[in-house]
Amino acid sequence: MAKNTRRPIRLGMVGGGTGAFIGAVHRIASRLDGDYQLVAGALSSRPEVAKQSGAELGLAEDRIYTDFEDMARVEAGREDGIEAVAIVTPNHMHFAPAKAFLEAGIHVICDKPLTASLEDAYALQKVQPKNGAKFLLTHNYTGFPLIRQARELVRSGALGKIRVVQVEYPQDWLAVPAAEDNKQAAWRTDPAKSGAGGAIGDIGTHAYNLARYVTGLKTAAVAADLDAFVPGRPLDDNVNIMLRFQGGAKGMLWASQVAVGCENGLQLRVYGEKAGIEWRQDNPNYMWFSEFGKPRQLLTRGGAIDTPPAAAMGVRIPAGHPEGYLEAFATLYSQFAAIIRGEGAEFEGLLPTLDDGVEGMEFIMAAVKSSQDDSRWTKLG
Amino acid sequence: MAKNTRRPIRLGMVGGGTGAFIGAVHRIASRLDGDYQLVAGALSSRPEVAKQSGAELGLAEDRIYTDFEDMARVEAGREDGIEAVAIVTPNHMHFAPAKAFLEAGIHVICDKPLTASLEDAYALQKVQPKNGAKFLLTHNYTGFPLIRQARELVRSGALGKIRVVQVEYPQDWLAVPAAEDNKQAAWRTDPAKSGAGGAIGDIGTHAYNLARYVTGLKTAAVAADLDAFVPGRPLDDNVNIMLRFQGGAKGMLWASQVAVGCENGLQLRVYGEKAGIEWRQDNPNYMWFSEFGKPRQLLTRGGAIDTPPAAAMGVRIPAGHPEGYLEAFATLYSQFAAIIRGEGAEFEGLLPTLDDGVEGMEFIMAAVKSSQDDSRWTKLG
Amino acid sequence: MAKNTRRPIRLGMVGGGTGAFIGAVHRIASRLDGDYQLVAGALSSRPEVAKQSGAELGLAEDRIYTDFEDMARVEAGREDGIEAVAIVTPNHMHFAPAKAFLEAGIHVICDKPLTASLEDAYALQKVQPKNGAKFLLTHNYTGFPLIRQARELVRSGALGKIRVVQVEYPQDWLAVPAAEDNKQAAWRTDPAKSGAGGAIGDIGTHAYNLARYVTGLKTAAVAADLDAFVPGRPLDDNVNIMLRFQGGAKGMLWASQVAVGCENGLQLRVYGEKAGIEWRQDNPNYMWFSEFGKPRQLLTRGGAIDTPPAAAMGVRIPAGHPEGYLEAFATLYSQFAAIIRGEGAEFEGLLPTLDDGVEGMEFIMAAVKSSQDDSRWTKLG
Amino acid sequence: MAKNTRRPIRLGMVGGGTGAFIGAVHRIASRLDGDYQLVAGALSSRPEVAKQSGAELGLAEDRIYTDFEDMARVEAGREDGIEAVAIVTPNHMHFAPAKAFLEAGIHVICDKPLTASLEDAYALQKVQPKNGAKFLLTHNYTGFPLIRQARELVRSGALGKIRVVQVEYPQDWLAVPAAEDNKQAAWRTDPAKSGAGGAIGDIGTHAYNLARYVTGLKTAAVAADLDAFVPGRPLDDNVNIMLRFQGGAKGMLWASQVAVGCENGLQLRVYGEKAGIEWRQDNPNYMWFSEFGKPRQLLTRGGAIDTPPAAAMGVRIPAGHPEGYLEAFATLYSQFAAIIRGEGAEFEGLLPTLDDGVEGMEFIMAAVKSSQDDSRWTKLG
Repeated sequence: MAKNTRRPIRLGMVGGGTGAFIGAVHRIASRLDGDYQLVAGALSSRPEVAKQSGAELGLAEDRIYTDFEDMARVEAGREDGIEAVAIVTPNHMHFAPAKAFLEAGIHVICDKPLTASLEDAYALQKVQPKNGAKFLLTHNYTGFPLIRQARELVRSGALGKIRVVQVEYPQDWLAVPAAEDNKQAAWRTDPAKSGAGGAIGDIGTHAYNLARYVTGLKTAAVAADLDAFVPGRPLDDNVNIMLRFQGGAKGMLWASQVAVGCENGLQLRVYGEKAGIEWRQDNPNYMWFSEFGKPRQLLTRGGAIDTPPAAAMGVRIPAGHPEGYLEAFATLYSQFAAIIRGEGAEFEGLLPTLDDGVEGMEFIMAAVKSSQDDSRWTKLG
Repeated sequence: MAKNTRRPIRLGMVGGGTGAFIGAVHRIASRLDGDYQLVAGALSSRPEVAKQSGAELGLAEDRIYTDFEDMARVEAGREDGIEAVAIVTPNHMHFAPAKAFLEAGIHVICDKPLTASLEDAYALQKVQPKNGAKFLLTHNYTGFPLIRQARELVRSGALGKIRVVQVEYPQDWLAVPAAEDNKQAAWRTDPAKSGAGGAIGDIGTHAYNLARYVTGLKTAAVAADLDAFVPGRPLDDNVNIMLRFQGGAKGMLWASQVAVGCENGLQLRVYGEKAGIEWRQDNPNYMWFSEFGKPRQLLTRGGAIDTPPAAAMGVRIPAGHPEGYLEAFATLYSQFAAIIRGEGAEFEGLLPTLDDGVEGMEFIMAAVKSSQDDSRWTKLG
Repeated sequence: MAKNTRRPIRLGMVGGGTGAFIGAVHRIASRLDGDYQLVAGALSSRPEVAKQSGAELGLAEDRIYTDFEDMARVEAGREDGIEAVAIVTPNHMHFAPAKAFLEAGIHVICDKPLTASLEDAYALQKVQPKNGAKFLLTHNYTGFPLIRQARELVRSGALGKIRVVQVEYPQDWLAVPAAEDNKQAAWRTDPAKSGAGGAIGDIGTHAYNLARYVTGLKTAAVAADLDAFVPGRPLDDNVNIMLRFQGGAKGMLWASQVAVGCENGLQLRVYGEKAGIEWRQDNPNYMWFSEFGKPRQLLTRGGAIDTPPAAAMGVRIPAGHPEGYLEAFATLYSQFAAIIRGEGAEFEGLLPTLDDGVEGMEFIMAAVKSSQDDSRWTKLG
Repeated sequence: MAKNTRRPIRLGMVGGGTGAFIGAVHRIASRLDGDYQLVAGALSSRPEVAKQSGAELGLAEDRIYTDFEDMARVEAGREDGIEAVAIVTPNHMHFAPAKAFLEAGIHVICDKPLTASLEDAYALQKVQPKNGAKFLLTHNYTGFPLIRQARELVRSGALGKIRVVQVEYPQDWLAVPAAEDNKQAAWRTDPAKSGAGGAIGDIGTHAYNLARYVTGLKTAAVAADLDAFVPGRPLDDNVNIMLRFQGGAKGMLWASQVAVGCENGLQLRVYGEKAGIEWRQDNPNYMWFSEFGKPRQLLTRGGAIDTPPAAAMGVRIPAGHPEGYLEAFATLYSQFAAIIRGEGAEFEGLLPTLDDGVEGMEFIMAAVKSSQDDSRWTKLG
């Protein structure tokens, strides 16, 4: 468990006002291990909402902003200014604040996908952070201890050369037209806010990142077939993709918002020459590990296995007591805190980066393009 | 349960000599409900094996044949000749005996896939059976009661219009080069015996048939990416396919013989506008049924649901007592027996037919062609 | 798989007329591997039912009996008389036919529990079978391959000394008063036909036998708390029992007919000093095997484990294809056939015996007595 | 999700120094929803450990105590003194600090079991808290949303009258003698620190409380059989108990520290006249709900069910994203915070109380007594 030997890092937040989902998640994640204290926010572009939300969160009045650029400037100038900022706005509002805070020398924790357009992603990649400000992309599933374990198993050669990757992320909440007042649905199905991808940007990119994170394979090309099943929906709500990886491995990726009965059924399966692994988010404390010719083994978080250092921080409680989504999210925050403090060398390479975000955008755009081109194999970038 | 009010149907067998796998399965299936008695066989093309195998099975000496054409001719001429024959040879040896027995007026029960080539499949479709001899293709998974239930749920409109189909059949037994003396592997990986498809013909076609059987959707086109991961293997051992159905539904099909840790992981998931169903062969007595906005329901074979007539024969024992693969297989045999006896009108349309077999071959060939053509969308037939 | 090198054994049946459940199961079990042929029956005590049932099963008219004693006498005198008989009547009608056929030199396959009273059980134990006629008690769960595997694991010392046994058998079909015309419920809840035990005799004895079969532990005493929750029911429908085994192991047994939502949830868990095993009937092809300090392993029927000879006959099809209740039942029949033919020495000790049946009755009576005696620890016998 | 509209509650901690398990859990739970800030501690009875632990947690030097009585006195006198204290010491050290802080007018959050002896429990019950200081016993499993849902289902009558309760809590970490330096094992197996119960006090009392919490049934008597399987262990490591509830329901409780392969397998099953529920901690986001004669339903945390107010706070993230042990723990903390602030009337009755703790001690003592008395039925209290 993370030792919290010093004062918490001062954190700001952009987005995440009253009623927001992912902002609240980021706040819990920042608090869970005691590494951050939220002290400033531009929580909404609507001034009253920003003010009320800030008050509810106990922010000092002078640190409740209605404009993220003001916030970047003012906080950078304060002695007790924020050291890091969490950006939890819809996709199209990631780029500008990320740029502003990086250039102000404030570390950035940004929700995924990186941006709403590939151009923004490339532009962000070119930003010169002041004072070495760092960037974390919250592909939170990478924080699960058994995902870290899976990654180490692949790296250690326990699976042999990877042949087959199957990843999926089915949901059903958009199986019917969303209610008018559903804020979460509204921006996610609006190209102006979400970008060119619907399900593929919201959850497909999580699935893609997870497969890449665990296998380390580089993508050669994708062949995609995207659909919007709900009439009138401008963005895809079901994503079928075949994947070709460099070196010959093959994969399939399915993401859906119309798979009735599925809640957040993220699942990853990887098969190599020597062994296979299977993991589902709905019970993330279990992972199957199967060596050829031997019985399947059920690995458990913190259980009767050698937990690699990369996974250890995610084991806060004994095996059999379930940890979940918020804990995985918190692990990203805590390890980023260690990096910020200059004590996280061991976590470098474990946390999703801006470059991962760019690749995620390339993946989205390649899939959209392939789908428009009758599923032709399409390279990334 | 099947009433066995009369003498059993006299059955012959082509293939299935000592050491064969699927021949033994067919024999159990034929016996289970008491509807057949095996009385003749051309159990092997090698005379000694044929004789020894026949003796072991208790066949009369004069009804142990070494040539299936002899058997068709002689048995057709006997007063107590066989009424039906089970063809359980490798794929390339389905066509000739099927033709011979149909033309001799003997009902044919044939293992899948129908033939080793599309040409043979079309030719078999044109054969004129004597005396109305009938044909059963043993896509045995269609015999599972909950698969019948799933089919009825789709037909009844309980799922609404189908949008998404996910079907898969992973195995791992060919993840390493097969042993030289592995008969099952030898012919399945030999194009001369198996035809143009490896995994796709052996298990991909099962998965495809199952999806078609349950959904009733017609296929518009397939985009396939086939691989042979084991060096030197001439036929595919991993199959990634995207499916487009007429009417707009989309699907994915994965079949693999190199997915380490998977035994016979056949799984079907179908999602419509109103509900979804999910079923796995490893516990075929359970099926998830999820209506939008309601909790998932676990339907059980013979349990607290209305079992449709199509499924009823497959419920031999109370819910909670598991029935499996052999019982599903037996249901095909028993319902075909009812049809042979002229008492099975209710089962017409429930049993896989020669036409299903032709479509299966079209599917295999379209997938092979698409894969050779850089996964281009390819129509069947 | 059983080789069927000779003619089937001629089988008779007592009980099992139209509408009976367990009689039909015995018939399937007898046919499945081809080792028996049903040729005679006293299928009902009601003459018309006996005749009609016999006709439906294709029995010759002169071998349809209305009295089991006639049947024993006549069949024993025929050159082609039955060699074995299956007794599938309600409990109180096990003793008399079992005695009659054993004394006629005809092998007996008898459903459980052995009798309706302990006196009958002891009396049956004293019967002198003619010509070495043998006896099989169909505690069918002992036929599951993984149960055999579990037994071998215990015997091999893989679990170390056994400490804890947890066994349960919940159902819910009697959670409400049974319908008047429910034959299965009628005799099972009638002390005159069932004996002194309700749930304990019907399913508790299965659970008890299973625990004893796998662990080999001898019972020291039981402390029982039996209830009849449904008003007016004269026999127990819920059974709570604590077990003390010789040597110090402890156990709990729960059997219930009122556990709403449970179908036939037989489950056995055994924990020793070194390892534990867990098995559920609803997917009998899987068994957990957990060694201390190592990940859980999922053993599969016929899968990547060394299948001991005791389990091999039960593996008819490849791993991943489910076999179930009927196959386990059939394994008992087939191995008893081998014993009858004098070729089954390897199966002696694997099949439930008359002595097991006596112990089962002692268990029932001890539990009933303990429950009447405020759950005092009570010895068997 | 809890709104955090004001400053956090000032929290102190007794116990929980470096290396402690449950202290760290309490700290995370207190932070997760932002309702508490840890500002003082008597973290160890060993002064150096207390000081070092306090420093690591960022406590001000003058609020790091080496004596809890000092802490109670000093903090009660400070303007900015702690408002609540978490007591996370071994069992025998619950009573004295709980008394001290209650009498100082500081709210107490105390780990379970309440005390090490029944006398202490009764004495604590008689303490007069100053200024209405309140008491929370952290039977944390009561914080799981689906446990709250289960409780509401019982109360609503959805299950009908309860008949059968099955609860268990198997672990395996003490299956072998604990290592000398295992602090967790050391005090738990030491009667001087743990009290008269081993497994029964550590986990049996959790299982008992959970059953009581959900069903609301009062206990009539217990019949217990306790064992210490590991040679030389002075306290029980396996607990078999039969339960009789007032009104006629019956139950069984199994707790074990020697069930090899089990991690923290807490499971509750409750069956009533009309329906049953089944829940396991290893995936606490799922619960089976089965109505008689209908298919089983899988209820999910925050899913397609009416979440009662009692469960709502525990749903921080959408269904399908797993929440776990720490979140359940945090819910107790957050709801206790609301009560402390005078805004938690709705949570009164939902949180485990001092009286629950007394009953837990009565349960432990009754079980120990029954076991010593050859498992005689023994009343509580």
